[in-house]
Amino acid sequence: MLKRRLFTPGPVPVPDRVRLAMAQPIINHRAADFLPVFRECRTKLQQVFQTKSPVVILSGSGTVAMEAAVSNVLSPGDEALVIRGGKFGERWAEICEAFGIQVTCIDVEWGKAVDPAAVAKALDQNPAIKAVYIQASETSTATRHPVKEVAEIVRRRDDCLMVVDAITAVGVYNVPMDAWGLDIVVSGSQKAFMLPPGLAFIAMSDRAQKFTKTAKCPRYYVDIAKEIKTLDKDQTAYTPAVSLLMGLAEALKIMVDEIGLEATWARTEKIAYVTREAMKSIGLKMLSEAPSPACTGVYLPDGIGADLRKYLIQVLGFTMADGQDQLKGKVLRIAHLGYFDGYDTITVIAAIEHALKAKGYNFKVGEATRCATELLSE
Amino acid sequence: MLKRRLFTPGPVPVPDRVRLAMAQPIINHRAADFLPVFRECRTKLQQVFQTKSPVVILSGSGTVAMEAAVSNVLSPGDEALVIRGGKFGERWAEICEAFGIQVTCIDVEWGKAVDPAAVAKALDQNPAIKAVYIQASETSTATRHPVKEVAEIVRRRDDCLMVVDAITAVGVYNVPMDAWGLDIVVSGSQKAFMLPPGLAFIAMSDRAQKFTKTAKCPRYYVDIAKEIKTLDKDQTAYTPAVSLLMGLAEALKIMVDEIGLEATWARTEKIAYVTREAMKSIGLKMLSEAPSPACTGVYLPDGIGADLRKYLIQVLGFTMADGQDQLKGKVLRIAHLGYFDGYDTITVIAAIEHALKAKGYNFKVGEATRCATELLSE
Repeated sequence: MLKRRLFTPGPVPVPDRVRLAMAQPIINHRAADFLPVFRECRTKLQQVFQTKSPVVILSGSGTVAMEAAVSNVLSPGDEALVIRGGKFGERWAEICEAFGIQVTCIDVEWGKAVDPAAVAKALDQNPAIKAVYIQASETSTATRHPVKEVAEIVRRRDDCLMVVDAITAVGVYNVPMDAWGLDIVVSGSQKAFMLPPGLAFIAMSDRAQKFTKTAKCPRYYVDIAKEIKTLDKDQTAYTPAVSLLMGLAEALKIMVDEIGLEATWARTEKIAYVTREAMKSIGLKMLSEAPSPACTGVYLPDGIGADLRKYLIQVLGFTMADGQDQLKGKVLRIAHLGYFDGYDTITVIAAIEHALKAKGYNFKVGEATRCATELLSE
Repeated sequence: MLKRRLFTPGPVPVPDRVRLAMAQPIINHRAADFLPVFRECRTKLQQVFQTKSPVVILSGSGTVAMEAAVSNVLSPGDEALVIRGGKFGERWAEICEAFGIQVTCIDVEWGKAVDPAAVAKALDQNPAIKAVYIQASETSTATRHPVKEVAEIVRRRDDCLMVVDAITAVGVYNVPMDAWGLDIVVSGSQKAFMLPPGLAFIAMSDRAQKFTKTAKCPRYYVDIAKEIKTLDKDQTAYTPAVSLLMGLAEALKIMVDEIGLEATWARTEKIAYVTREAMKSIGLKMLSEAPSPACTGVYLPDGIGADLRKYLIQVLGFTMADGQDQLKGKVLRIAHLGYFDGYDTITVIAAIEHALKAKGYNFKVGEATRCATELLSE
């Protein structure tokens, strides 16, 4: 009997209640019985994003919301600053380039967080910069950037947008959009929201909404101004992914009403901390110097390669994420965001210990699991 | 006890088997067990589209595939011809305009099919036209355009693409992409595919793929050349809507392996024909002169307005589509595409009869249902 357990930092497991909600008969998205479902989703999303601004729901991957955060507020030739410290920082730069934006990148070593002083310097050097693009949690390096501090710097200017890819941060740790003065925050369904992939979320401040009026990048499917207009009628501009929205309403009920946001952040922070300590207790090194609670990246020990992950998947049934690009085969990334608790965390740590032993790593098997169990009892 | 029955031309009801398939535990889209699911989907989609060309699966509404059919093959300033005979023809024109394409429209009276001779004339008058955009089935007017005949005209030129919105045509009636020389065909999950909304499909001929190499419209999320490259690895460029793909594999099994394409078209044509005859038998007039089998549009009798549809929904539990724009409150659109059979059709006709009676229409109640039952027995 091989039980399969999913520990990738998106998609994450979907609670049974949410899967049952999505299995309900389809209702038409223009019908009266759909409107309260949608209203529930859009208002609770505002709570999760901690904003009074509208949160638009798009059908698509998180990338569609990232694209929207460029094409809706900038014009070809505009200048943007991108914090590039991993795969998703690279994506911000690629999207900007695809739309003819002049990009300045602050390249951050993979696994490190950006230094806010570097952002201040770049903005001082180039007053034409109209938007700063950053990850709140750079999933490829399991790293958390200092969004609050960077936002404080960007907020010194009124003509520059602070745009945050919070795909693996909203609902993971405290990223209060309004309190921190963030202009655009994007996220996706298959992360803290415990849903399958297929929905993307984008919240826009008044300042960002003003930018949409002059932005000349071509756009049609992701026209945020158009979506904001239909939002008040509890509608989307184009046919939404109805079943995922049925699931979202249920997931938000769990997350916001039953568990609560603070408890969700605390649970995620706790199992992330426990995982890091457990991995360190058996001599493994962290990928990140500024770890995100969304997932933990650990380097595989010397002499142990990609077949460890294969063993975890094929023999033990645990699916974790590999490293990307230069990190391929060198790290494991273990998810904490979404539908995971302490006992899930104990099992994944035990499985990693078993796999390490099978691959010949020399350590006291069980020590990491003991460490995790102890820390979780505190 | 009010049973709810959905008869909108998308979303349509989802078979229980497909809903159960979507309720399975989520698997990671880069994991080995996802690859055969994806391969199944992309190869069976080629059968449904009747093409040897790749069929790309996008996460999003059908509109995202329509946008892709513009932004991936044209450059700002290019000329395009749009057949505009309804809401979705208008959408082609709007998308082209959003991307800076010079659009010539052939305006067709709502409810009529385009005259192929008008297309020939427009192409003769303007040799710079690089693409012709049309609906195979214009859902807003329940009308079928003569795609085969128009394609024959476009195919006289090698430098002009024939682009077909077949969102409510693929899997509805016979639209053989390769045999008819179509360059781009788009569709969506919530139509003949019997799935919830959230996936869009776009197939591209070799000719269209060549156009992508010189097309300068900006695009990132919907980069078809990039998707085609990842397709061979049974992957998508960005995280796909995993649960909908699990459902798609099951739906395609039903549609292609168990029922068969020809039987699917025949069933849909039959219930569309039966619905038209039944409605005519009680004096109702057709919205379309060239009806699509996807859905039937009928004019409400004089003196009977939008409250008929409200009665159908609220009192009888039958949700149908209203008219759009100038047709709002004047027509009913009854779906045939997807998971509908003859007995569903009998019930919806009976419900329309009951609603007409309740609203004071003078006719012999039961006659339309009798007519449908008789025709279905043939």
